[in-house]
Amino acid sequence: MATDIRTKGLKKPVDVTEYLFARLSQIGVKSVHGVPGDYNLVALDYLPKAGLKWVGSVNELNAAYAADGYARVKGIGALITTFGVGELSAINGMAGAYSEQIPVVHIVGCPSTVSQRNGMLLHHTLGNGDFNVFANMNAEISCALEKLNRPSEIADQIDHALRECWLRSRPVYLMLPTDMVQQKIEGERLNTPIDLSPPKNDEDRENYVVDVVLRYLHQAKNPVILVDACAIRHRVLDEVRDLVDKTKLPVFVTPMGKGAVDETHPCYGGVYAGSGSLPEVTERVDAADLIITIGALKSDFNTAGFSYRTSQLNSIDFHSTHCVVRYSEYPGVAMKGVLRKVIEQLDPKRMEAAPGPKVLNEVKENRDESPTITQAWFWPRIGEYLQENDIVVTETGTANFGIWATKFPTGVTALSQVLWGSIGWALGAAQGACLATQDIGDNRRTILFEGDGSLTLTVQEISTMVRHRARITIFCICNEGYTIERFIHGMDAEYNDIAEWKWKDLPFVFGATEKEARSFQIKTKDQLESLLKDKDFNSWGGLQFVELYMPKKDAPRALLLTAEASAKNNAKMED
Amino acid sequence: MATDIRTKGLKKPVDVTEYLFARLSQIGVKSVHGVPGDYNLVALDYLPKAGLKWVGSVNELNAAYAADGYARVKGIGALITTFGVGELSAINGMAGAYSEQIPVVHIVGCPSTVSQRNGMLLHHTLGNGDFNVFANMNAEISCALEKLNRPSEIADQIDHALRECWLRSRPVYLMLPTDMVQQKIEGERLNTPIDLSPPKNDEDRENYVVDVVLRYLHQAKNPVILVDACAIRHRVLDEVRDLVDKTKLPVFVTPMGKGAVDETHPCYGGVYAGSGSLPEVTERVDAADLIITIGALKSDFNTAGFSYRTSQLNSIDFHSTHCVVRYSEYPGVAMKGVLRKVIEQLDPKRMEAAPGPKVLNEVKENRDESPTITQAWFWPRIGEYLQENDIVVTETGTANFGIWATKFPTGVTALSQVLWGSIGWALGAAQGACLATQDIGDNRRTILFEGDGSLTLTVQEISTMVRHRARITIFCICNEGYTIERFIHGMDAEYNDIAEWKWKDLPFVFGATEKEARSFQIKTKDQLESLLKDKDFNSWGGLQFVELYMPKKDAPRALLLTAEASAKNNAKMED
Repeated sequence: MATDIRTKGLKKPVDVTEYLFARLSQIGVKSVHGVPGDYNLVALDYLPKAGLKWVGSVNELNAAYAADGYARVKGIGALITTFGVGELSAINGMAGAYSEQIPVVHIVGCPSTVSQRNGMLLHHTLGNGDFNVFANMNAEISCALEKLNRPSEIADQIDHALRECWLRSRPVYLMLPTDMVQQKIEGERLNTPIDLSPPKNDEDRENYVVDVVLRYLHQAKNPVILVDACAIRHRVLDEVRDLVDKTKLPVFVTPMGKGAVDETHPCYGGVYAGSGSLPEVTERVDAADLIITIGALKSDFNTAGFSYRTSQLNSIDFHSTHCVVRYSEYPGVAMKGVLRKVIEQLDPKRMEAAPGPKVLNEVKENRDESPTITQAWFWPRIGEYLQENDIVVTETGTANFGIWATKFPTGVTALSQVLWGSIGWALGAAQGACLATQDIGDNRRTILFEGDGSLTLTVQEISTMVRHRARITIFCICNEGYTIERFIHGMDAEYNDIAEWKWKDLPFVFGATEKEARSFQIKTKDQLESLLKDKDFNSWGGLQFVELYMPKKDAPRALLLTAEASAKNNAKMED
Repeated sequence: MATDIRTKGLKKPVDVTEYLFARLSQIGVKSVHGVPGDYNLVALDYLPKAGLKWVGSVNELNAAYAADGYARVKGIGALITTFGVGELSAINGMAGAYSEQIPVVHIVGCPSTVSQRNGMLLHHTLGNGDFNVFANMNAEISCALEKLNRPSEIADQIDHALRECWLRSRPVYLMLPTDMVQQKIEGERLNTPIDLSPPKNDEDRENYVVDVVLRYLHQAKNPVILVDACAIRHRVLDEVRDLVDKTKLPVFVTPMGKGAVDETHPCYGGVYAGSGSLPEVTERVDAADLIITIGALKSDFNTAGFSYRTSQLNSIDFHSTHCVVRYSEYPGVAMKGVLRKVIEQLDPKRMEAAPGPKVLNEVKENRDESPTITQAWFWPRIGEYLQENDIVVTETGTANFGIWATKFPTGVTALSQVLWGSIGWALGAAQGACLATQDIGDNRRTILFEGDGSLTLTVQEISTMVRHRARITIFCICNEGYTIERFIHGMDAEYNDIAEWKWKDLPFVFGATEKEARSFQIKTKDQLESLLKDKDFNSWGGLQFVELYMPKKDAPRALLLTAEASAKNNAKMED
């Protein structure tokens, strides 16, 4: 099985790892997340040479979350772990990226092909000589999986995997054995970038769909547009913008679609999530005779517990792999091409629709007399605090539901994990988002909203933020535990409590100096007002940690509705 | 598919979860580890009723590590997580338990069978309607897997899984849908405990093996006994003790077998790990004309890089599933029965062997003039600090190799994860070990030795220790990062560095008061001497954190040898 090719026949021999990292760099990765382990150490030596930065997270799950957050801002992310222990620690994060359709390249340094063939009893194995077991697990959550075992195939494998990763917007898994790291392969291929352009639709089919769409669109008397997660993931935000600009139709976003539309646009009508929406939003969407959904992903938490009352008979659904008009399905016809032609061909004069609701940050309306910071008041107030181009990360829990009530300035990027919903994700993701904006060079503010319960799971990632001088403001919502769980089941159950930490000391115990980080303890509306208005707080270039108290049993209205639906669904029995 | 049985025909109806927890309690679980999640909340309500304590770790990986540590002390452990996000966060810990042969029952609260059948787009799913994907992953690292979907089968499934868990000493995986939690099943079965007795060997085959073993044993002129991990895992320590007492043969332990033999016993000869052993140990084992291995697990890190020079022609190997005498294999003949008969039938007068080396804590021999605490001096010195019945947990890294040089008092239980080697494990495992001794009621001291690099991965589990008033002393070896990796590759590489934390503040930031926890900063031999001699330090009933400085590039000799072998093996190419 030994290969007989080393450098012979190669026009420009490069090491396997050099090739891999050059490709990563070409497709947009600048910082690589991960944790060192003895099966990946030699590969790590190649990072600087490729101009890649090693992030070095505190553990692999945090690193995976961070690579996910990085990809959401930079377009694609990468993670390097070690065989067995490292990759399995990361697997929940990668499953999240799969579920949420985030392109992350996962490279696993693994024992040499020789050790594998000999079934050696190595550390980080199950002791049974099976070196495929972890790859098998990862196959379930990867859109491509390549074992880089033969130099003659490796360049093809890498190019194929990275293309899949990008186009399908999902993780890929590369197994890099220690004895392949320094093998020689053809470097001349690197002069030709990987073709990342999406495959074109069959023209006849595409035109047919365009015609059908236009017919319904021109006939409709009161249509609306609803933008969801996959519009972001599958890169049709330009098409969304142009469609809205040309049609002037009211446009709504789902919770997972938040950030996809400029919320200061006159057509923007707010967040739609069935009966979890504001009454005027539900009313307007329900009144529509045509709902154009773009990239819909109708999960329980994205629809306030499947509470849409819209009809498929009134729907045109654009997806990354197919389109649906009423009950007619068009498999293989991807939305991007269709949308572009629809925009070009539609007649704006034939578009009519009642306007959508005006969206405002309803701060005064939600302010009560008490000094206590309520969820109802907080989220609109944050809408006034946010600035153009901020990156806003919200955690599963009160934050993910609260943010529905926050109207964003132009250019805000919103990160959340509404489908996968792994608590602790947001802290890692915020780190990744922050390094992405560093890498892009625009150094936008990253602002994280996370409950105390969630924060505890991945808390040490604050250390990585400090280490890389991340510009990030963490609002840690201190409400004594897992509030979202309380509303599903066990309002006063001990298992929903958490230990009381010295929250605001966290940045410092994790290595920050007073110059690098600042902490605040905020217990009243007035304190928060002062802080949010403080010029220095708004412009600070480093880490800020806000220990922010809210009542244990307070939650955004949308969370109450969704939690109730969840509890019911969990208990439901057949018959 | 609806079941037609609720309570009809049941003599003593009990809820599924009540049954499950009653069984857990019967087989020895008193504390259940895990993290709440909405698919397991209702099940958690059943814990107090069954007399089980909920631990509530800070994240699922930590909880899995802790359940592993708990099982190593209490005999068996249990973990409850939630579907998808929770179970995958724990999977590295469970893979470790599989690899290291630790019996842990993993219960996953999952969506209702109705939701599963309807392929609902729920949170914590991949969004593809596949509810089996995580079970499939877990199947690779579970010795039994049961989906508790039909009330009529559930009691059998539970009993079967728990029996497998115990007998095969490996994790099992139980999927508990939310709509099954409160279904009624037959409770009268609970009056009959699960039969955990190991299956008996076929008598003729067993007797045959006993005869063969005795023949070689009586013929040998200079035999030794070598005790390894599986002697502990498969519960033959009584047999080991009796064999040594009756034969008076020199007995050695492997690194993974450490703690299996009373190290104050006159026959105890030290740690054997091939050329990684002390010269007098290697010499004595190499001189043996018969090596009786009990529960051998010859992994790279357990053998200093496969450095045994013993011959199979001189070996008798006792395993949990088979025995091997020279090159003759006896599949299906488990060691326990054979060992017992060998002990009964052997003639001590026909046993002869040169004595083994004397084992001492060589403190003075390893003390140099400098105030710096060296690895060479530290580990023997710890041997003098340890007391009878201490629980000693060592992390992968310098601690796992350093502890070879520590001679234990009687009754010490040693926990390490030499095969799986997932850094961060030890902190979680120490928590579990500590709660196990609380549950047993003997409240032994738990003493953890862990490097700073490893500690960071799971650091927040200190919070759980504080919450449960764990009696534990943590020696955090501060040596600026991943020292074990440095010796494998990248001695000065940045990726092997870690951030500098305020280590000794950790217990307090995680919620401990000054009454509950104490911290120490130790930089010199004299400071350490004073601390280790301090009466209060020795008898303290709560948490102690020792920030202990050792040089970055100092490592136990055994680590140097093993790391070198690992680096070579990683680089090895065929041809």
